[in-house]
Amino acid sequence: MQTLTIIKIGGNVIDDSSALKRFLTAFSGLSGSKLLVHGGGKVATQMADKLGIQTTMVDGRRITDQPMLDVVTMVYGGLVNKQIVAKLQALEVNAIGMTGADAGTVLAKKRPVKDIDYGMVGDIEEVNSGQIQFFLHQDLTPVFAPITYSKSGDLLNTNADTMASAIAVDMVRHNEVTLIYCFEKKGVLKDPMDDDSVINELTPTLYAEYKAAGTINKGMIPKLDNAFKALENGVSKVIICHADEVAAAVEQGAGTTLKK
Amino acid sequence: MQTLTIIKIGGNVIDDSSALKRFLTAFSGLSGSKLLVHGGGKVATQMADKLGIQTTMVDGRRITDQPMLDVVTMVYGGLVNKQIVAKLQALEVNAIGMTGADAGTVLAKKRPVKDIDYGMVGDIEEVNSGQIQFFLHQDLTPVFAPITYSKSGDLLNTNADTMASAIAVDMVRHNEVTLIYCFEKKGVLKDPMDDDSVINELTPTLYAEYKAAGTINKGMIPKLDNAFKALENGVSKVIICHADEVAAAVEQGAGTTLKK
Repeated sequence: MQTLTIIKIGGNVIDDSSALKRFLTAFSGLSGSKLLVHGGGKVATQMADKLGIQTTMVDGRRITDQPMLDVVTMVYGGLVNKQIVAKLQALEVNAIGMTGADAGTVLAKKRPVKDIDYGMVGDIEEVNSGQIQFFLHQDLTPVFAPITYSKSGDLLNTNADTMASAIAVDMVRHNEVTLIYCFEKKGVLKDPMDDDSVINELTPTLYAEYKAAGTINKGMIPKLDNAFKALENGVSKVIICHADEVAAAVEQGAGTTLKK
Repeated sequence: MQTLTIIKIGGNVIDDSSALKRFLTAFSGLSGSKLLVHGGGKVATQMADKLGIQTTMVDGRRITDQPMLDVVTMVYGGLVNKQIVAKLQALEVNAIGMTGADAGTVLAKKRPVKDIDYGMVGDIEEVNSGQIQFFLHQDLTPVFAPITYSKSGDLLNTNADTMASAIAVDMVRHNEVTLIYCFEKKGVLKDPMDDDSVINELTPTLYAEYKAAGTINKGMIPKLDNAFKALENGVSKVIICHADEVAAAVEQGAGTTLKK
């Protein structure tokens, strides 16, 4: 079976042009099929500010009304996505930027309103892994912006971590999949104050213990929940590491590796 | 040989949501392979205004400094492109939005500075028609934003008429190509004041006469130059018509048909 490495990079890489350059260079050097999912970083919030559109976050999730969806579509789907694609082309990676709407790759449903109305936010319903596989077969490297679409033709803002996880789980049909979440730390930390206290291997039992102890906190919980979910659903390996250590994580076990 | 219809729509359609909806519905009904190239309309200028970025036009061409390139990439490559793609998906057209950077489809070179420095503007060097054909073979409908890229990894603003013409000429290797330019009139007019004075057939000789007489004026000249160039380079048919008459133009000869 072919190997596929799916990497999610977040705002801390997007917002720092030299960090992004280092990451894309490392990414271009990875062997085998690869796929990138990116977040948007502060650019969307800054752009919304400049346009007089207020940003509201609930539990780290953006409330997306129509003007905010337009900003997210412009910044994630346009600016960030296309800059990454052009840079990868210069690194001789035949990148193809897309949202979930493009080629019908990631279909979603507008999140139902319960306690909170998240607005134009999509919960993923279906990943068209056959279509994505077809791009990989042609040596194309898909670069996904965290935007999906509904059957009625609306664009929907979607969490990039969730999108990476959903794509990874569905791509298991065609590949042996490694999923890597890059963030601003070297891995999941034993001591949040000590950047070098990386937990090398994290099992569900250990994760439960660290959560109970409060060592693993708010922002990390949805990320790790997504990560463990991917592992349970057939993804071969999930790694959480610093964007500067992607190559080392793949080759030498840097970062935190999740185990079943 | 397969038939391919390439349609370029401009700002007048993009800026009017009901006109866009009518056009996309007609587009979805066209038989055979199809490909769409869109401009950006007033949204880019409005967005630039809101962001305090000045728009400078010379002979109808936008001067593109880096901040303006970012606006164009956001608005054309993100907002407009993805809205069109999601709407086409709802119309059961498997659209894939792209810029020239995506899958390396349209490579360009930054325009050399002569009398005017156009900034980050690209002159097309190479269309990867094999790659585009491969999307068409998979029943995907490419939707191009008028942005290209350079070998060094820069995005470049590119005239949408030129992009449509360049793609059409290169796709002749694989298809019998019809190129349709949609604009705000029913075709090229004998009398600019009379919307119904459509010239049904335009030859190079007639074109030269109308230019000499001043009947065909400024804005139409680069469009028609592009159109005749496409015809000379193997495109089977070039039509200039109103966006509302695309189906009628393909089936019943509405609009202006260019002849060699």
